[in-house]
Amino acid sequence: MEIIGQESHDKVGFLARMWWWIMGLLNKFKGKLIGVTSKTKKLGKDDPRRIIHSVKMGLALSLISLVYYFRPIYDSFGVSTMWAVLTVVVVFEFTVGATLGKGFNRGMATFLAGALGVGAHHLASLAGEQGEPIVIGFFVFLLASAASFSRFYPEIKARYDYGVLIFILTFSLVSVSGYRVEKIVQLAHQRLSTIILGSLTCVFISIFVCPVWAGEELHNQIAVNLEKIADFLEGFGGEYFQTELSNGESALDTKDEKLFLERYKSVLNSKTAEENLANFAQWEPCHGHFRYQHPWKQYLKTGGLIRQCAYRVEALNSYIKSEIQAPPEFKKKIQDACIKMSSESAKALSELASAIRTMTQPCTANVHIANSRIAANSLKTTLKTALPMDTDLLQIISAVTVTALLVEIVSCAENIAESVHELARLAKFKHPKEQIVVIENPRIVHLVTIKPLSDMNCPQVVIKIDESSPTLVENTILSKPLEKSVH
Amino acid sequence: MEIIGQESHDKVGFLARMWWWIMGLLNKFKGKLIGVTSKTKKLGKDDPRRIIHSVKMGLALSLISLVYYFRPIYDSFGVSTMWAVLTVVVVFEFTVGATLGKGFNRGMATFLAGALGVGAHHLASLAGEQGEPIVIGFFVFLLASAASFSRFYPEIKARYDYGVLIFILTFSLVSVSGYRVEKIVQLAHQRLSTIILGSLTCVFISIFVCPVWAGEELHNQIAVNLEKIADFLEGFGGEYFQTELSNGESALDTKDEKLFLERYKSVLNSKTAEENLANFAQWEPCHGHFRYQHPWKQYLKTGGLIRQCAYRVEALNSYIKSEIQAPPEFKKKIQDACIKMSSESAKALSELASAIRTMTQPCTANVHIANSRIAANSLKTTLKTALPMDTDLLQIISAVTVTALLVEIVSCAENIAESVHELARLAKFKHPKEQIVVIENPRIVHLVTIKPLSDMNCPQVVIKIDESSPTLVENTILSKPLEKSVH
Repeated sequence: MEIIGQESHDKVGFLARMWWWIMGLLNKFKGKLIGVTSKTKKLGKDDPRRIIHSVKMGLALSLISLVYYFRPIYDSFGVSTMWAVLTVVVVFEFTVGATLGKGFNRGMATFLAGALGVGAHHLASLAGEQGEPIVIGFFVFLLASAASFSRFYPEIKARYDYGVLIFILTFSLVSVSGYRVEKIVQLAHQRLSTIILGSLTCVFISIFVCPVWAGEELHNQIAVNLEKIADFLEGFGGEYFQTELSNGESALDTKDEKLFLERYKSVLNSKTAEENLANFAQWEPCHGHFRYQHPWKQYLKTGGLIRQCAYRVEALNSYIKSEIQAPPEFKKKIQDACIKMSSESAKALSELASAIRTMTQPCTANVHIANSRIAANSLKTTLKTALPMDTDLLQIISAVTVTALLVEIVSCAENIAESVHELARLAKFKHPKEQIVVIENPRIVHLVTIKPLSDMNCPQVVIKIDESSPTLVENTILSKPLEKSVH
Repeated sequence: MEIIGQESHDKVGFLARMWWWIMGLLNKFKGKLIGVTSKTKKLGKDDPRRIIHSVKMGLALSLISLVYYFRPIYDSFGVSTMWAVLTVVVVFEFTVGATLGKGFNRGMATFLAGALGVGAHHLASLAGEQGEPIVIGFFVFLLASAASFSRFYPEIKARYDYGVLIFILTFSLVSVSGYRVEKIVQLAHQRLSTIILGSLTCVFISIFVCPVWAGEELHNQIAVNLEKIADFLEGFGGEYFQTELSNGESALDTKDEKLFLERYKSVLNSKTAEENLANFAQWEPCHGHFRYQHPWKQYLKTGGLIRQCAYRVEALNSYIKSEIQAPPEFKKKIQDACIKMSSESAKALSELASAIRTMTQPCTANVHIANSRIAANSLKTTLKTALPMDTDLLQIISAVTVTALLVEIVSCAENIAESVHELARLAKFKHPKEQIVVIENPRIVHLVTIKPLSDMNCPQVVIKIDESSPTLVENTILSKPLEKSVH
């Protein structure tokens, strides 16, 4: 009895363990599923164009598959029909430019390599049945080696990498397979036709169904990067000096808000993505506000300058929570100028970003640049007298570094502004409507050089002098644009 | 007479112009040819493995072409033989890891998608002749969309991007073409066999003919990046203070030598390349000193810290030729400590680089880190008293910023050293033979914490105290390692 009881007890125990094991497995699976689902949702939410792209890919493939079911097409192409499907899968890319580039590369390379392959095949056939494989092998070796090496040239790598690959592929296939199949020219022709058919399907869907233009992407990317740097600079003053900002808001204190101070980090590694987009953009036809020969290189130049600024911001960021904080009275002395420098630079960068977004001349940005330059100069005046007799340098070293880095950032912002102006000129950005800009502290305007507004193609800018400050505008650099611009 | 003379004169003039035009064209062509030749030479000279890679590619293609000429193989595979050639062209990559990854992805995806395609084809055939195209079209749309979306997951993008592409390709080809070709299973089998044949050819040549390992490449890349930063820091002191260096060499003055100060710039944008190499390295089998599960992630972490350091160096670089130079007497006060900080950090980074290169424990690097930390602390002491009464802060702001950035760089070097130590531990770097390290200025050793040498698995390190300095080693932190390490 006891043994039977023991046995049934064991059985129950085993079943219970099995039950728990299965439940555990199910739970684990459920957890995994929830994880994947939430990740998928996030991916789709972050950029809904990803979902659209996937659907477009499915559509393009289903469309090209129809070719198999149309007897006239299938009968004329035969097995080569599959090249159409193959082309759609490999050519269809996220952006129009990438799709066009790949389609062009594939078509052109197939044509060139096909012609060369037929030539090589003809030459080899002159060498007799014995010599033919050797001659063809030699040709394949020579062309494949040379073409592979050409992929190391940066210019070829950037625009024609895929073309060279397809060139090697087609040349090998045509010249080698020619040994067996007599109808080589017909095959080459069929392949080219189906590849063109596939490429055209991709290009058509890519352009006419919710297109994603690489050029627009690059354009927006530059604006977004400017905004990220601006976000940091906007928040930096309040964060470093832990003060109430001028508009009464307190310094950022929740975790979510502080994330804005980290957003610039993605700018640091933006080079590769920008270069790829610029390469793709060069394949694109005119679209929206972008002409065929839009100055994409100027975007890369601007992007490089933004990264320069981001490196300074990265260095600055490590001082927000510095161990050694300067004495409060010293900090107080430099506070206004520092906050001004960073917030005015932020405003300038924001203006430049919105000018890029709206494709208008960035007229008002220079005024903010001038304001930040004014703050930098007033800081210099402060620094000459700021040092209390008994301060040791060690205590103020981090505060001094912060100011020096901010001055550097003001220079960076100036360079960026110049580059965006050049971009606006090259890309013929439109003129904005009436804009009002306020120059503060006109007393020290004479210390800085403001780029004359007349140069900026901004005929309707009204410059208001802040009445609260004594209006001792000295008749120096500003006088000319002031006279000219008030309408 | 005159007319005839005029005519012959015109003819001569025309011929002369033609002659000059042709000569000009030839010269232009010659110039272009010389340009391309010199560029080719440079590409080959910069990395001779490029030439080897190209020859390997030619070899692999010629080898696989032989399949066409072996009647037994060609007879059993038929037209499918071309998939072998196609596979070689697209799978053969510069590094072993990339080739292996692509080969694995291609083989695996073909197998999975082939099986699924046959299944889909079977299911669709149940729907009758009318329903089949619709069902298959639906399947293709669904799978292509889902698979395309999966390419946006970073994990899949990094390792299986090519596999997903081939999955879509094969599934479409098999399920669609099945409508016409009855021998679908045989085709799928032939395709898989030829793809495996092609992949194996690539992998074989890639591994056994002058292999380029992605892992080794990443390993060297990290060492090279460390050396680039070290080069800058080594040269910085002399360049900024424009002094004779301690070893009697004058500051860098020729253009060629100054290029060393620019080499670090490539480190700023090294992230993408490093991540790619780490992805490829994960596919590689053990080779040389690298085990199968070598800690590649730790390389990425170290690379990130090196970039952090490079951002500081970039900020520092702009001060070499600052407009406002500090008064000579102030510069002189901070000079020794600054040069020490930068040169000792440089030595530490060099030691770390050579430890990585030789795969030995980086025992002596920490001593240089300690030296640079000592210099930083002594600088702090100097700064407390350095300020002459009549100095205005504006004049010394750039010099102060340089010192602050150097202190930051010392911290960065410390982080890098820690990360390399972790790497050495994870990758089980070997122990070095007897090493002699010199601790200078032992008087202030007590100010800093030196990581006990006993932790570093360096049983045979001899620490020499610089006899020229008064040997007042205080019995603090160093005492333990000193006792333990002298053998």
